[in-house]
Amino acid sequence: MATMKVSVLRGMGQVAVEERDIPEPAADEVLVEVGSVGVCGSDVHYFEHGRIGPYVVDSPLILGHEAGGVVAAVGDEVSSLRVGQRVSIEPGVPCRSCSQCLAGRYNLCPDVKFFATPPYDGAFSQYVAMPAAFVYPVPDSISDDAAGLLEPLSVGVWACRRAQLAPGKTVLVTGAGPIGLIAAQTARAYGADAVTVTDVNPHRLRLAEKLGLATIDVSRTSLADAEVEPDVLLECSGNARATWDAVSTMARAGRAVLVGMGGDTVQLPLSYVQDRELMITGAFRYANTWPIAIQLAASGRVDLDSMVTGHYGLDEVEAALTASRSDPTTVKAIVRPGN
Amino acid sequence: MATMKVSVLRGMGQVAVEERDIPEPAADEVLVEVGSVGVCGSDVHYFEHGRIGPYVVDSPLILGHEAGGVVAAVGDEVSSLRVGQRVSIEPGVPCRSCSQCLAGRYNLCPDVKFFATPPYDGAFSQYVAMPAAFVYPVPDSISDDAAGLLEPLSVGVWACRRAQLAPGKTVLVTGAGPIGLIAAQTARAYGADAVTVTDVNPHRLRLAEKLGLATIDVSRTSLADAEVEPDVLLECSGNARATWDAVSTMARAGRAVLVGMGGDTVQLPLSYVQDRELMITGAFRYANTWPIAIQLAASGRVDLDSMVTGHYGLDEVEAALTASRSDPTTVKAIVRPGN
Amino acid sequence: MATMKVSVLRGMGQVAVEERDIPEPAADEVLVEVGSVGVCGSDVHYFEHGRIGPYVVDSPLILGHEAGGVVAAVGDEVSSLRVGQRVSIEPGVPCRSCSQCLAGRYNLCPDVKFFATPPYDGAFSQYVAMPAAFVYPVPDSISDDAAGLLEPLSVGVWACRRAQLAPGKTVLVTGAGPIGLIAAQTARAYGADAVTVTDVNPHRLRLAEKLGLATIDVSRTSLADAEVEPDVLLECSGNARATWDAVSTMARAGRAVLVGMGGDTVQLPLSYVQDRELMITGAFRYANTWPIAIQLAASGRVDLDSMVTGHYGLDEVEAALTASRSDPTTVKAIVRPGN
Amino acid sequence: MATMKVSVLRGMGQVAVEERDIPEPAADEVLVEVGSVGVCGSDVHYFEHGRIGPYVVDSPLILGHEAGGVVAAVGDEVSSLRVGQRVSIEPGVPCRSCSQCLAGRYNLCPDVKFFATPPYDGAFSQYVAMPAAFVYPVPDSISDDAAGLLEPLSVGVWACRRAQLAPGKTVLVTGAGPIGLIAAQTARAYGADAVTVTDVNPHRLRLAEKLGLATIDVSRTSLADAEVEPDVLLECSGNARATWDAVSTMARAGRAVLVGMGGDTVQLPLSYVQDRELMITGAFRYANTWPIAIQLAASGRVDLDSMVTGHYGLDEVEAALTASRSDPTTVKAIVRPGN
Repeated sequence: MATMKVSVLRGMGQVAVEERDIPEPAADEVLVEVGSVGVCGSDVHYFEHGRIGPYVVDSPLILGHEAGGVVAAVGDEVSSLRVGQRVSIEPGVPCRSCSQCLAGRYNLCPDVKFFATPPYDGAFSQYVAMPAAFVYPVPDSISDDAAGLLEPLSVGVWACRRAQLAPGKTVLVTGAGPIGLIAAQTARAYGADAVTVTDVNPHRLRLAEKLGLATIDVSRTSLADAEVEPDVLLECSGNARATWDAVSTMARAGRAVLVGMGGDTVQLPLSYVQDRELMITGAFRYANTWPIAIQLAASGRVDLDSMVTGHYGLDEVEAALTASRSDPTTVKAIVRPGN
Repeated sequence: MATMKVSVLRGMGQVAVEERDIPEPAADEVLVEVGSVGVCGSDVHYFEHGRIGPYVVDSPLILGHEAGGVVAAVGDEVSSLRVGQRVSIEPGVPCRSCSQCLAGRYNLCPDVKFFATPPYDGAFSQYVAMPAAFVYPVPDSISDDAAGLLEPLSVGVWACRRAQLAPGKTVLVTGAGPIGLIAAQTARAYGADAVTVTDVNPHRLRLAEKLGLATIDVSRTSLADAEVEPDVLLECSGNARATWDAVSTMARAGRAVLVGMGGDTVQLPLSYVQDRELMITGAFRYANTWPIAIQLAASGRVDLDSMVTGHYGLDEVEAALTASRSDPTTVKAIVRPGN
Repeated sequence: MATMKVSVLRGMGQVAVEERDIPEPAADEVLVEVGSVGVCGSDVHYFEHGRIGPYVVDSPLILGHEAGGVVAAVGDEVSSLRVGQRVSIEPGVPCRSCSQCLAGRYNLCPDVKFFATPPYDGAFSQYVAMPAAFVYPVPDSISDDAAGLLEPLSVGVWACRRAQLAPGKTVLVTGAGPIGLIAAQTARAYGADAVTVTDVNPHRLRLAEKLGLATIDVSRTSLADAEVEPDVLLECSGNARATWDAVSTMARAGRAVLVGMGGDTVQLPLSYVQDRELMITGAFRYANTWPIAIQLAASGRVDLDSMVTGHYGLDEVEAALTASRSDPTTVKAIVRPGN
Repeated sequence: MATMKVSVLRGMGQVAVEERDIPEPAADEVLVEVGSVGVCGSDVHYFEHGRIGPYVVDSPLILGHEAGGVVAAVGDEVSSLRVGQRVSIEPGVPCRSCSQCLAGRYNLCPDVKFFATPPYDGAFSQYVAMPAAFVYPVPDSISDDAAGLLEPLSVGVWACRRAQLAPGKTVLVTGAGPIGLIAAQTARAYGADAVTVTDVNPHRLRLAEKLGLATIDVSRTSLADAEVEPDVLLECSGNARATWDAVSTMARAGRAVLVGMGGDTVQLPLSYVQDRELMITGAFRYANTWPIAIQLAASGRVDLDSMVTGHYGLDEVEAALTASRSDPTTVKAIVRPGN
């Protein structure tokens, strides 16, 4: 049995390259040679804190869940994919038997197996095996990096769907990190005419402008003064103050989707929410988004490659995580397991 | 010009009967001889505090907005109603020209004229004039008191509509005041199989049981222990702790409607809301509910008369307000301007 | 290996009892000893014509798909059910990997395996094996026959969901066969105040009345004269004329669900559909309906037992099919494989 | 009192310029000096046949309802508009008191007063008076002709809303007339990736291609062979055969909006509609669409000016109507009352 290299989180702040057996794809699975994996805030959080809420890293864990690559082998029953195809991986496999799965809300499946969420390994690995139903071919117009970044794009698509975005809606996106920048572009692709992004990081605000988005530097201009009055809020900062301020500017019957993770408690302006009948909801991962994400990226309506600010080999995962945590000019670091 | 008696709030804690001219109905209006008016928490709040949020009573105000009566005169252009008909009054008249009104969300009209909301007078009055479009005939199976209580029933209907209630949903109603008891019955009429009401007031819990509802006395049993896991929460207590506890028990993809007024801030369990993709919204009054409310009350599916715990004349409004505020056995006090 | 008796359709108009091996439940399956199976119009159609549209019976087929029974054995991985439990069977097993399944519309799965639809055998059989996810325990308040009839009740639930039924809606049900009578009761449980059923068969109209439904004998009174103007039409007759007449009476923004099978072509009043913006849709089986159906039947809101007009043993299947086809007093014939 | 010129339909096939009094705007109205009016198929139909279904021209009627212009005077209560503003006119004024209006479906108001629908005059006129709530300022990026053509764009917006269009949907538009071409562009602005337009007129298909749309000449390629399998059908041809063929290619759970007027009867493939649970609906005018249409046109996402194939003065209305009816190279004729 052949072996492969993987990057393993051994404990808080400790990652190391190890050797593992290359997995054998089951009958309904394919083996993917991983080409490109985006570093996500949750990877950084596990690296720094060893846990996210109830999910505790108590044995070695492979991080990474924004992955694309090339099909290296297919299981006996797989007819939808063939060796050599460039693909993007949806990193969660739901049970498909519970009431949430059968109702089409498989993102809420209590038994989902999700990359890089303990105890399931992720994609900072030369190879991964995955059920074919969650592996999607991508066209040439989607780069290797973008194939991995269809995962955060799926987060943006899901947020826009929960927000019921459509032409005529004014949109505010709080937070110009990778998710905010992608969600803002997605909102525009859903037909929103006016999309404004807020942040305090000048590098990120400049990137937002480069992408054609309106911006507000909330370290200089208060949101209230900006008079946006959005119909839709995509909250991507996870910041309590930003959330309160943004919800407090919303238009009547507006919809706010809380995407950014911000701890256990959120305070909201109750009478404002009631008087204007705002709808506030969380977004948890995504369901049925890959086909849409592929169309948005392939047609250039969402630019994923501009998010990428650095590439790292498997032996540089620590550097990739550190840059993602603390370098203000890093937007999206990419790990290339083959390098 | 003939005169009528009205009960006027002259200042905090001060109500008095005064004489006023009977209004002349405009061409599209009817004059209603008011028979029965429910006392609402907002009436009590204006009486006690002289204001509700931005709405300040700075000149004499007639309270009361849950009103039924008999048509006494009709304007020249009115063909939908005739003198002598028993009717229920929808107490808000929206502008019908703004974007909210034209979109069918007339409850969110910024220019609505609503009974007993400064500067507009309410229905603790022998007569009121109202556009015919907001006055609804009621059948004999709806009592005079119930004709007035179609207003709080409309609140319940609106909450159930915003909750997208339907058979198969498990429902939790926090707060067994008039709104909670009516909303719980309405939820059942919308097909909910399991409806549970919480409170700490034993009188109100007994009334809930009498109405066939499951109850939890949350002074004795914690909601977490009760293991309700509701798909729908109708929050009717306005209590911060009750809201947090109830939201924290909700089922995946659940919907919470915040009906009870509870000040300017609400705290919610953010990661729980996100991980389960709960939908949280406020309910502000109602739109297009009277025809439904009439059907629910007329068929007996919602029992409004059991809410009534006392009747008061126009010169007893202070007693009605005081009982509503501080008597634990009072559920719904009724003012009868004709008595 | 033990054997069991089954009733097999050998060719058009030919059914016979045969001996088969009792199936071995797979790891995720349970073995159900079938207690009661309703005879459906589709069973009758296969018996009479040997096909339904593209589905052709070209080898021996066991009919029957409205089945309840008792768990006789459970597969190794099954923890949700235990031997001896009374259960109802959802008769279709979708692939759970295609886009329709993952979106929660598993009724539209192109690869579903459905009882008594060639080439898949049904439930006129002493035992059937079924994935546990599609087998539901039923409480004592649901009779053995009703356990089987949760299947047509699911059709009614699905129709009501597609119609977005709720209190305040006026409902017309065309056709007082088993599906029509069940759908009408379901509509009432969804909160509809006024539900009217049409037919020309006096036996069925009498049963409708017994169930508390309003009726119109359309052999005597034209629908246009009846002035129903329904918001919702549940078309359960499959009759072209009834469909046209019913659609032509609908209220503005009404929703029509075409449940009854009526051949390849339907004519609709185009300008009426356009001017009133009617929504017309088909209903194909159901998805995620069993938990709701169980609640509706267990609480008595839908009376399934009153549908039953006769019981037949496995060796009387031909009589059951014949009565269902041509006896005007038969509403729902039940096959009891254990008799 | 000053006078103005109008073009009047005096009888079938007869139009003539007449002199009329310039209307005086009521307190809530504005007077608009009409700049540009599109010729619609309904104008042509009244001109040719003297009626559309139940609407009969039995006294002289001014045609034209796709109108833009400049505010010439404002009523006493109007604060939203001022003299000199360039505007677009929404040509129907609903009653705003009936249940349809109050529910936000004012397009279904039975008492709407709509331009050029007997007995209400339209906009082939130098001036019209209109409630300010239905007159919308337009930015400089919208041409005079486009200001009028926001009306057919509203038809496209409404069709897309009824179709619940969003990214990921495959769209088929049958009929490349003005409505089809505008609806197809609107579908793209709503995020549809793949929009295909069918027709048999080579001029119109060329224009569709120029607008970047995929096309099928159904006189050469059958729709079935084209294998489009649309999620959404926007039927804009009014042709019975095209409707049947298009519906018969739709994807599971697809939505068809019947926009084109095609007589009193439509035939649909019933079992196909049922098995795939297609949703079929009509679209009747529009509600709450102008703000969206303005955004789509102002941003260039929908190109209205390319629809215009000729301009006509008030004394050339007959030529404009005739070209619209029978000249295959005419797409949208514009009447300019000021010329």
